[in-house]
Amino acid sequence: MNKRKIFNDPVYGFITIPHELIFDIIEHRYFQRLRRIKQLGLSDYIYPGALHTRFHHALGAFHLMRKAISILKIKGISISEEEELGASIAILLHDIGHGPFSHTLEKCLIPGVNHESISRIYFKKLNQHFDGKLNTAIQIFEDTYPKRFLHQLVSSQLDVDRLDYLTRDSFFTGVNEGIISYDRIIEMMNVVNDELVIEQKGIYSIEKFIISRRLMYWQVYLHKTVLCVEQMLIKTIERAKQLSMQGEELPCSKALNYFLQKNISAEEFANSNEAIENFSLLDDVDVFAGLKEWQFHPDVVLSKLCEAILNRHLFKIELHNHPIAEDYITALRKNVAERMNISEEDARGFVFADSTYNHAYNTKEDMIKMLGRDGVVRNASNVSEHLEATVVSERVVKYYVCYPKMAK
Amino acid sequence: MNKRKIFNDPVYGFITIPHELIFDIIEHRYFQRLRRIKQLGLSDYIYPGALHTRFHHALGAFHLMRKAISILKIKGISISEEEELGASIAILLHDIGHGPFSHTLEKCLIPGVNHESISRIYFKKLNQHFDGKLNTAIQIFEDTYPKRFLHQLVSSQLDVDRLDYLTRDSFFTGVNEGIISYDRIIEMMNVVNDELVIEQKGIYSIEKFIISRRLMYWQVYLHKTVLCVEQMLIKTIERAKQLSMQGEELPCSKALNYFLQKNISAEEFANSNEAIENFSLLDDVDVFAGLKEWQFHPDVVLSKLCEAILNRHLFKIELHNHPIAEDYITALRKNVAERMNISEEDARGFVFADSTYNHAYNTKEDMIKMLGRDGVVRNASNVSEHLEATVVSERVVKYYVCYPKMAK
Amino acid sequence: MNKRKIFNDPVYGFITIPHELIFDIIEHRYFQRLRRIKQLGLSDYIYPGALHTRFHHALGAFHLMRKAISILKIKGISISEEEELGASIAILLHDIGHGPFSHTLEKCLIPGVNHESISRIYFKKLNQHFDGKLNTAIQIFEDTYPKRFLHQLVSSQLDVDRLDYLTRDSFFTGVNEGIISYDRIIEMMNVVNDELVIEQKGIYSIEKFIISRRLMYWQVYLHKTVLCVEQMLIKTIERAKQLSMQGEELPCSKALNYFLQKNISAEEFANSNEAIENFSLLDDVDVFAGLKEWQFHPDVVLSKLCEAILNRHLFKIELHNHPIAEDYITALRKNVAERMNISEEDARGFVFADSTYNHAYNTKEDMIKMLGRDGVVRNASNVSEHLEATVVSERVVKYYVCYPKMAK
Amino acid sequence: MNKRKIFNDPVYGFITIPHELIFDIIEHRYFQRLRRIKQLGLSDYIYPGALHTRFHHALGAFHLMRKAISILKIKGISISEEEELGASIAILLHDIGHGPFSHTLEKCLIPGVNHESISRIYFKKLNQHFDGKLNTAIQIFEDTYPKRFLHQLVSSQLDVDRLDYLTRDSFFTGVNEGIISYDRIIEMMNVVNDELVIEQKGIYSIEKFIISRRLMYWQVYLHKTVLCVEQMLIKTIERAKQLSMQGEELPCSKALNYFLQKNISAEEFANSNEAIENFSLLDDVDVFAGLKEWQFHPDVVLSKLCEAILNRHLFKIELHNHPIAEDYITALRKNVAERMNISEEDARGFVFADSTYNHAYNTKEDMIKMLGRDGVVRNASNVSEHLEATVVSERVVKYYVCYPKMAK
Repeated sequence: MNKRKIFNDPVYGFITIPHELIFDIIEHRYFQRLRRIKQLGLSDYIYPGALHTRFHHALGAFHLMRKAISILKIKGISISEEEELGASIAILLHDIGHGPFSHTLEKCLIPGVNHESISRIYFKKLNQHFDGKLNTAIQIFEDTYPKRFLHQLVSSQLDVDRLDYLTRDSFFTGVNEGIISYDRIIEMMNVVNDELVIEQKGIYSIEKFIISRRLMYWQVYLHKTVLCVEQMLIKTIERAKQLSMQGEELPCSKALNYFLQKNISAEEFANSNEAIENFSLLDDVDVFAGLKEWQFHPDVVLSKLCEAILNRHLFKIELHNHPIAEDYITALRKNVAERMNISEEDARGFVFADSTYNHAYNTKEDMIKMLGRDGVVRNASNVSEHLEATVVSERVVKYYVCYPKMAK
Repeated sequence: MNKRKIFNDPVYGFITIPHELIFDIIEHRYFQRLRRIKQLGLSDYIYPGALHTRFHHALGAFHLMRKAISILKIKGISISEEEELGASIAILLHDIGHGPFSHTLEKCLIPGVNHESISRIYFKKLNQHFDGKLNTAIQIFEDTYPKRFLHQLVSSQLDVDRLDYLTRDSFFTGVNEGIISYDRIIEMMNVVNDELVIEQKGIYSIEKFIISRRLMYWQVYLHKTVLCVEQMLIKTIERAKQLSMQGEELPCSKALNYFLQKNISAEEFANSNEAIENFSLLDDVDVFAGLKEWQFHPDVVLSKLCEAILNRHLFKIELHNHPIAEDYITALRKNVAERMNISEEDARGFVFADSTYNHAYNTKEDMIKMLGRDGVVRNASNVSEHLEATVVSERVVKYYVCYPKMAK
Repeated sequence: MNKRKIFNDPVYGFITIPHELIFDIIEHRYFQRLRRIKQLGLSDYIYPGALHTRFHHALGAFHLMRKAISILKIKGISISEEEELGASIAILLHDIGHGPFSHTLEKCLIPGVNHESISRIYFKKLNQHFDGKLNTAIQIFEDTYPKRFLHQLVSSQLDVDRLDYLTRDSFFTGVNEGIISYDRIIEMMNVVNDELVIEQKGIYSIEKFIISRRLMYWQVYLHKTVLCVEQMLIKTIERAKQLSMQGEELPCSKALNYFLQKNISAEEFANSNEAIENFSLLDDVDVFAGLKEWQFHPDVVLSKLCEAILNRHLFKIELHNHPIAEDYITALRKNVAERMNISEEDARGFVFADSTYNHAYNTKEDMIKMLGRDGVVRNASNVSEHLEATVVSERVVKYYVCYPKMAK
Repeated sequence: MNKRKIFNDPVYGFITIPHELIFDIIEHRYFQRLRRIKQLGLSDYIYPGALHTRFHHALGAFHLMRKAISILKIKGISISEEEELGASIAILLHDIGHGPFSHTLEKCLIPGVNHESISRIYFKKLNQHFDGKLNTAIQIFEDTYPKRFLHQLVSSQLDVDRLDYLTRDSFFTGVNEGIISYDRIIEMMNVVNDELVIEQKGIYSIEKFIISRRLMYWQVYLHKTVLCVEQMLIKTIERAKQLSMQGEELPCSKALNYFLQKNISAEEFANSNEAIENFSLLDDVDVFAGLKEWQFHPDVVLSKLCEAILNRHLFKIELHNHPIAEDYITALRKNVAERMNISEEDARGFVFADSTYNHAYNTKEDMIKMLGRDGVVRNASNVSEHLEATVVSERVVKYYVCYPKMAK
């Protein structure tokens, strides 16, 4: 590599790209597409600074991966250059399969095909393009590589993915309380029996990390207004898809049109170059460009939803700790149907209910491991009186219903 | 106003909206449109964090306006509630007339109509909508209000517009060197004879402000790669417009199509509800949605430009201190024409030259005034040995030529 | 007041002094003394940046008090100018009774007289000096003022004292994890029935505040090396006091000498102008100047302790979850006695054991109150599933023993 | 080294000590003494956060040295481990010869012996102690090592010393405007013909660095109130010395007494173990402990000065661009002499005048070198239109006179 490539990052200062292959992957159009996919969907409607992209997050997580590997090597953990490169590529591409508006539209635009399985497809595509140089990266990503800690750095309850997104999302939303000490946590990383562990004295940083994550969930990711506008977008795409599948030709990009007109199974997707190619052309722009045209569409459900999103006339949202009575929802729908002169069935586009939950720390999954001063490895929740508490790891469910003001 | 409205801003912490009218203006779709216009055009291609919008900048400048007015009032300057509201609205709307990609496309999408004149149109529209409540704001914006310092806070060589954008652009690009002490400068503001002045002891902050501005110009606003990609976008729109005016129907939003198909004079614009309405529907999304479709268009100039921008295959750019020889440019164009099998005329879309300049501090315009401890007001450049230097205020011109790699 | 007085604070930017009386109190030598008392005692031995003083903390807490009062007034809570001034003075002087090395030496230099009771004495002294202008401040400080929330802002489980010290100590130690959102918490403050409450939606910030406090306790305030060096200092002063009371004249300042030569009861202190005056001359400098002379003193216990502290030859410290066996400690002492050729009694200066504990959140004291959207006030621990957990509020005790390396 | 030693630094996050010898040097009592010498003397009287020490600065500069060396090595510059260690030790110890209150008392406590020559003495002492392991460090420090760039990193117009102190002083004073992009400047470092150069594209960062330095000079280092209190301290020590040399026994530490009682030449100092040992015991504590006792001394000049400093009753200071008339100063002195009933000669302790100057960038010294894209090395002032200006490099002289309020 004849010159060092450096990215300016307001979060970490500089991100250095140390290897030509990494640079070439970043330059590939599959990766450049991530520039047009916001990390936090429509959260900027509540936090105007939250416009950062999957592209930026991937670079950031890559940066932390390099830091982590460097610390582990100083501590005497053997990691070859090939492994370092593999882990770096694995984290760089871990979100490559995300579509427009990331998680928000994941289940409605291409139902039944999750972003991880799409990521796997693009990993393979890029591996072909780069003559098999991504083999190790793929093994690490898919957790088939012997040194498991490399996969755990990419994906676990304390991976560099989470370290970056909590840090980055805090930074761009301005919710400083989400700030974690990614550098201190990385300093405390170690490896025992090929498993990632955190040294004992890092226990307070781990507690803090989990409580920050919990806070970011309720304050940002599941903020009630964010939930509401995201559901509005889902309803819009569902309506657009419904109309398209009925034969209506909606003005929008060819790539978006492709996915509106038919449902594709995970298997079909994996085997269709057309699907893969169209997906690689799809990003936030297609969706918003669609909305901007559809706000003038004769279908009142579609046009009203589009207009409401574009002009930020958000619906009301009610949050409950218990399931919401069906009667209540039906009554709201009836009101809307009446006032808008539409069927109750169509009013489902305006009045909708669902539930959401958050796991700050999941004691069912692989748990965070702590390395005691005595050399023994224990689960974090056995070390911290705080994490021990069932409450942190308990699944908190919230129920909600959204509706336009006129519904009441 | 029954509840306080607060925006989370990573730059200033919280931005409070203290007045119902301000809130209603923010809620208006003319203002919401600014959510979809990036402050720095395509600078995120070089600084990936630079995705902040005109919406965010307008809120930030508004926040600083309130700080400035509060300091001036503490110092005994008489400012009525009506005036405070007027100045707040004037700054909130100062960029309302910006179109897609802000300055970048200003001169090519609607040539002959600058964003200030469009701002004036929307000021009037909103004044009608809000029953004349923007009268004072308009006077302040147009500098016809007696207390000139209110206009100077909105627009001068040391206005809250500049204080916010230097701060905000530094923050989101990660170019910390651009950071200025907006709070210290505001603390030093005062008013003499209805003119805004800075107290003597603020002179080093003023020097620093001007040097930071100079640095931001060369490091960000006129960064050579930013220049290059912006010119590529201009060439793309020019080509699209050329094709459209020849009768070609390009796939794109109706609003964008409207401005591609004809040239509109400033006078026509001001008197055409159709133009005003279409403009109010236009933002960055329309342009990028266009690019995404046009990358498959049969016109090779258009499609290649679109593809190059979307996949970040940027042209080379050469910067010179002296005008670039016409011969050199022609030779490059010939090469491109040959290799792409297009006419030399069409090759102008790929090989183009221009110049740019920056004034860190303009001694021709209204200058920054300093208030001495002796009560005398002087020009900043007479107070600072540093600003006195002609070099800071000298116009620096840079010449450049852009071309694809194959041109050589 | 003819000019606004502003302090530059790296934590909050600017701290403005809005009132002449406040300024005069700051100028008083009682308050200036706080410039020479470090906030965190000897923590700079572990965190080299932690050199900030009680002076700085008092200004910071004062700044947050003004913010809190301003928010409450915007929300319609009636607070008179006299009350605002009173609360401001109360917080400014809340630590005026701290002696050298704050909490560390509190119980050994003047045993039986705590800093709160000394604060009360100086409040009265200053009230005389300022002709009774501190009457309201004293009532608020002593919780006899009817509007209890003013006292709660000064002293409760969520007062501006804690908000400032957590923020400031995080800042200067560099332990970013301690950072709390003081501004968000203040934004959420409200008053119901003259009691301070936090609005419901602030619950996650409260959780975070308590977990940050817990983290700061273990990471900084009760850091094992901090504990160790503080105990070494205590042993040094105890030894100096023992020698002085036996008639030995130790070289040190007159003020320090005064308190070394005799024990003073709280009552004597309150009634002795000599004690009050000598105390007002005492700060960190006296203690360290003493240590520097005593490192050459013939008493080996005294001189070795002084030398060890000055040159940072710290003892070892062992932390246990259970009380440490007396046998173990005695054995260590014997070793030291033997190697240093001193009596076992004297070896108590080198081998010492004690325990410490921390309450992140005390459910026995007045609890943090949350104001629900339904208008009902509840204890924070009833609102948060997280705080509900007994673990957060459980008293965690740690036992430790310190000894020089040669003891083993 | 059996464990990695890490310092928490609020400025850089973590500072890692990678080598046992470095760690041992830090542990040495000569170096630990720097914990008790504030970096900015009495500047905390104006900027209350500015309590950071030479100890902290030395660690910070050491951290930047390691960063710089790492960047240079990546760029292919050959630097052996021995050289890296040498440069690291050279910067770590570059200020080891500073006495109490750093520059402030340098010329009055031990007149004729500057801190650089004392540093050289301690370098040698430590080299003996560490069996000659500091040989390379000494050569680099004294600029006799062939690879000159190593010395330039330690001491030149763009050394890591300046990079750290500007950054650190900005941080702790809260004067954000002093912030420089130390990381960007280090990224731009390179070596040509064994000389340190900055790559061309770093020119704006260099301009900014020089303007920030200029700003910090006037805003902090030469702030008029800082000047005033520092001069008051100098006058105090001069008076104490005068009395001591007349045979008066002032209460103070033995080490301070040693230097008060006699003048020592540079040669005597270098050859006197007694002087070297006494100096190694001297720090800010001795001086302030002295002041605290002397405030009750019968000599009115001494006691009034001490009291004024301790209670922050600062003198007035007048700043002029031209030398101050002797008449004016004499008149002030007469007034003071009369009111205090002292001789005019003694009144020199209360009324004193001097001048100060600052060189933001010295074109007489070795200049900052820029490496052009064409491979040619040029002086920075030939590359930047801004630095070219004589004004930046012109010596700015300010004249001042200080006196107590009663003088007028």
